[in-house]
Amino acid sequence: MQFLSDNAASVHPRVWEAMRAADAADAPYDGDRWSQALDAAFSALFGREVAVLWAATGTAANCLSLASLCQPHGAVVCHEEAHIEVDEGGAPGFFLHGAKLILVPGESAKLTPDAVRMVIDPVRDDVHQVQPHAISVTQASEYGCCYRPEEIAAIGSLAKQRGLGFHVDGARFANAVAWLGCDPRDAVGGADTLSFGFIKNGGMSAEAIVFFDPAMADVARYRRKRAGHLQSKGRYLAAQLLVMLEGNLWLDNARAANAAAAEIAGACGDRLMHPVEANELFVTLSPEERKALRTQGFSFYDWGDDAARLVTAWNTRADHVSALSQAIAQL
Amino acid sequence: MQFLSDNAASVHPRVWEAMRAADAADAPYDGDRWSQALDAAFSALFGREVAVLWAATGTAANCLSLASLCQPHGAVVCHEEAHIEVDEGGAPGFFLHGAKLILVPGESAKLTPDAVRMVIDPVRDDVHQVQPHAISVTQASEYGCCYRPEEIAAIGSLAKQRGLGFHVDGARFANAVAWLGCDPRDAVGGADTLSFGFIKNGGMSAEAIVFFDPAMADVARYRRKRAGHLQSKGRYLAAQLLVMLEGNLWLDNARAANAAAAEIAGACGDRLMHPVEANELFVTLSPEERKALRTQGFSFYDWGDDAARLVTAWNTRADHVSALSQAIAQL
Amino acid sequence: MQFLSDNAASVHPRVWEAMRAADAADAPYDGDRWSQALDAAFSALFGREVAVLWAATGTAANCLSLASLCQPHGAVVCHEEAHIEVDEGGAPGFFLHGAKLILVPGESAKLTPDAVRMVIDPVRDDVHQVQPHAISVTQASEYGCCYRPEEIAAIGSLAKQRGLGFHVDGARFANAVAWLGCDPRDAVGGADTLSFGFIKNGGMSAEAIVFFDPAMADVARYRRKRAGHLQSKGRYLAAQLLVMLEGNLWLDNARAANAAAAEIAGACGDRLMHPVEANELFVTLSPEERKALRTQGFSFYDWGDDAARLVTAWNTRADHVSALSQAIAQL
Amino acid sequence: MQFLSDNAASVHPRVWEAMRAADAADAPYDGDRWSQALDAAFSALFGREVAVLWAATGTAANCLSLASLCQPHGAVVCHEEAHIEVDEGGAPGFFLHGAKLILVPGESAKLTPDAVRMVIDPVRDDVHQVQPHAISVTQASEYGCCYRPEEIAAIGSLAKQRGLGFHVDGARFANAVAWLGCDPRDAVGGADTLSFGFIKNGGMSAEAIVFFDPAMADVARYRRKRAGHLQSKGRYLAAQLLVMLEGNLWLDNARAANAAAAEIAGACGDRLMHPVEANELFVTLSPEERKALRTQGFSFYDWGDDAARLVTAWNTRADHVSALSQAIAQL
Repeated sequence: MQFLSDNAASVHPRVWEAMRAADAADAPYDGDRWSQALDAAFSALFGREVAVLWAATGTAANCLSLASLCQPHGAVVCHEEAHIEVDEGGAPGFFLHGAKLILVPGESAKLTPDAVRMVIDPVRDDVHQVQPHAISVTQASEYGCCYRPEEIAAIGSLAKQRGLGFHVDGARFANAVAWLGCDPRDAVGGADTLSFGFIKNGGMSAEAIVFFDPAMADVARYRRKRAGHLQSKGRYLAAQLLVMLEGNLWLDNARAANAAAAEIAGACGDRLMHPVEANELFVTLSPEERKALRTQGFSFYDWGDDAARLVTAWNTRADHVSALSQAIAQL
Repeated sequence: MQFLSDNAASVHPRVWEAMRAADAADAPYDGDRWSQALDAAFSALFGREVAVLWAATGTAANCLSLASLCQPHGAVVCHEEAHIEVDEGGAPGFFLHGAKLILVPGESAKLTPDAVRMVIDPVRDDVHQVQPHAISVTQASEYGCCYRPEEIAAIGSLAKQRGLGFHVDGARFANAVAWLGCDPRDAVGGADTLSFGFIKNGGMSAEAIVFFDPAMADVARYRRKRAGHLQSKGRYLAAQLLVMLEGNLWLDNARAANAAAAEIAGACGDRLMHPVEANELFVTLSPEERKALRTQGFSFYDWGDDAARLVTAWNTRADHVSALSQAIAQL
Repeated sequence: MQFLSDNAASVHPRVWEAMRAADAADAPYDGDRWSQALDAAFSALFGREVAVLWAATGTAANCLSLASLCQPHGAVVCHEEAHIEVDEGGAPGFFLHGAKLILVPGESAKLTPDAVRMVIDPVRDDVHQVQPHAISVTQASEYGCCYRPEEIAAIGSLAKQRGLGFHVDGARFANAVAWLGCDPRDAVGGADTLSFGFIKNGGMSAEAIVFFDPAMADVARYRRKRAGHLQSKGRYLAAQLLVMLEGNLWLDNARAANAAAAEIAGACGDRLMHPVEANELFVTLSPEERKALRTQGFSFYDWGDDAARLVTAWNTRADHVSALSQAIAQL
Repeated sequence: MQFLSDNAASVHPRVWEAMRAADAADAPYDGDRWSQALDAAFSALFGREVAVLWAATGTAANCLSLASLCQPHGAVVCHEEAHIEVDEGGAPGFFLHGAKLILVPGESAKLTPDAVRMVIDPVRDDVHQVQPHAISVTQASEYGCCYRPEEIAAIGSLAKQRGLGFHVDGARFANAVAWLGCDPRDAVGGADTLSFGFIKNGGMSAEAIVFFDPAMADVARYRRKRAGHLQSKGRYLAAQLLVMLEGNLWLDNARAANAAAAEIAGACGDRLMHPVEANELFVTLSPEERKALRTQGFSFYDWGDDAARLVTAWNTRADHVSALSQAIAQL
């Protein structure tokens, strides 16, 4: 019974179908009809004109986004536990040619305008210190917590005020929107770019980079090629994204994962280290308790010495969820 | 009737099957059983211990290879029409942090040891000039021509003699081996790294980077992650590579494409600009002749003003091949 | 009798004096009164508002200039024998984060609009090929030849027409202006940036980067610091530049060097490989002839197998010039 | 009365003399007799064979050092207030192609082996996290505190144990050695490279990069050129370094600066925020007190809201020191 991660889950059957349906040869790279349809599909979703590029990983999506917002001599402000800082193997330094990450603390891996100001206000406005060029937040956060529309809008406003770009890492954006129950546009707070994740949500190998200023995509296209991320059979990636938007499959999948997480959360009580607002649970569990759970067939990652991370996916089985909930309740 | 490229052809049915067979969740990234089986499978193929990483594009495979062989302050020696120079959007400059390409002329886009020496011997051995660190050749070449085992070995020897790394861009390595009829190891001339292409040969999204010195892969893994090329569902890429090696599907596919090209070549006579030794034909055709062919339903790229490039794939239909051959013969 | 290079010549006495006069502690970096006076001094010289940064080498000046005009995914168009291509150890690749140089042939190391067009027009406007972002020319050229005002203006116009930045490498700009006898502004052809050399012309360690769009300097300041080129005692560099402009010392020095070269040129007749329009002579001389000259005490660099490069400086002695002229005439 | 910084102080008369003595043309770049004498001079000082390159700034010296020890995909461990993190405009990111700095807290801006271990031990040994490649410490630290020989040796041992490179930023190395009263070699703790500062100590524009493994300098030479830091009249830089070593001028200058600082420290009592072990004082002073001192003619930098930084130099006048000491005592 797997609660390790959503990032290796099976591909949704409709995604498989859509990929098969794109099998006949078409124009290479992103000249095919699926890739060409992305802008319209996402523009409809966000209710405004956007330009969209596919990328095979969240890391590539994040870094190509950030490269549009931060010059090599600048810095991106982010949470000290942000994925771009902690888990991307230094990719921002590579894609941004040595730009810095300026780290900000904050509960549940969320930024607040005050916390950002506390860190960037003391940066001297001279050439000896690296100046912030952009802010990046994660929606939902590394701890599975969501920015309310007004919270993320406040950060967006701060960014605009200071002339900074604003990026949203939405590796689990679907889970956030599903939980917030809001319009997707209200979940991005006026961002310039969004890494819109699908791989953790039933996709195989395609994330969407959404440029809310479509002109930005024109340059990003060159950077994507230059980073070796322009696949020649791009239609298989575009097809994944398009089918996800059809009939809101993306939301259905996220709701399923969220519901599973919520059910388990109900059994965790005080053990929860963070509110459960997406599909991740961080749960206080002693080594003995973890051992007990593993003996019963549950797999998950340790989180430090006294806790575990449990992640549900679009296809986590109901009986596994019940079993885990019960097992935790009985510890 | 499509002769545009092999790079957007359909995915082979056995590749689809292998991908589906990998659908159950397994360890993420390259911890899954498919990714873990790559080293053994390719070591068997080459008759020696190698380490293999998957990558989603030929550009990524080439550049991650080259980054193992050339430091940022050095240069890679390659043909002036090499893909890494002409068609990768400057990716080598990105992955190698500004290293240079030193360009060498040569017939049919092939290098010779003499031609390489003519260009690198005059490089002054001082800090004002960028020193060569590696040589890269393409097997088969940009013009679909193959290095004979002794030809590529001669370049490998020169590289070793001069202390240079040696990389083979094998985007169409399968076509080369099929045409040469040799052991794959004899087609790489003692290279340090090989970008072994599968996407143009019936795959979907996976190339293999073969490290003939397995220790090199340990560092390349970090570079792959840092370039955003470590996919979380890597098993779908690994499965593509493994099934291609099973029963020599890679060779069968390449032979089919080569045979189609050879049949068309038979109809081209003096029109051929380069020997046809893989699955590409460069054919002298006036604008009127090209128009005539297109009117009959053939699609292909112009090659300058007075020629066309015709490419066959693993699944090019026999009737299309006959039709094109006949149409050319009748011009 | 030294005709090796102007780049290691003694420092002019007035430069020494100016440096000594700046010895009292002042604000560090470029906050001192000398550095602060640069914009005004060069604006007066060029008859328009410019911003000026000092840099310790021509390579740094060139590369900081180019980084203002070309993004990492772009290319700089330059002569195939340009200093930035041949003699700067790959510095443009470093400062421009892997941007390419697109090489153009041309007599006497000069570009023409036609030659540039021949090379950039075939660049496909797609992401697979690196797009030109800027043009760089050298005034005087690597072979000591000067662009006439209309010649360099024509290249400037082409750049503007194509939306490309335009940089002038003026390592020997003083010699060019002295020879052309024109207003300095007419020698730059509407460039965006000029690397204005002083080190080869009697300075010690300061070149000027002239930004004809002063706003560009604001970002370049960050790049200069980031490249480790912001010296804390910058006043000693600024003082060198200021004294050079005072009473046109820069022109006097250049005229002296040019005159020496012209005198020697008079003795060379058919041996001259390029017109002598600055302070460099490229002279056909057999190995025996070179040996003969060296035996008489003249030092210079070989230029290939059958020629030599002779360079004069601001302080080349008249008796040495006569002696060399006579020696060559008598060969 | 200037206590702002040592970094803009006048140049020592003997340094001027040495520069003038190097005025006659010699080989360019570092082929001159002064540059060629550096290895021997510094090898004598350190009692072992070292190789030495000059560089015009501490930032360049630090970053060229670090580039020898850390690959682009790795990280340098340093104090969170280290100059390379806080005051070099992101230069390490530039020279190291996006490598990271891993920040460690510690009193008086000094690292301890325990503090380093606390930060690097949790780094997972996988490709998702940037691995440490090197440790960098500052001797004397940003707060003017010195590592005792056994302290710095302990960090050197940790580095060796973990297979990490070890760099010492010695912008004020002279002040540290003067205060420690030890052999210079005991002040570097087995470092691989040392940025040996002279500019703050009476030099004009030359720092020494000391490679304790001379082979490292061979590659660093290429990086120096590539960074635009190879000056053509390098003899003027080398001459500064050589004269500083002659008769231990470097130690005399540092002792003078340290003595001035010590005298002022005597008047500061409890106001001292850090032990005074070099030529910097960090002193608790209210805004009113700072105003009072400034009214009396003392200039210095604020250090946050309630403190000031006072720096002495090789030529700080004795009467100024007395005056300041008295003024502080009387606050």
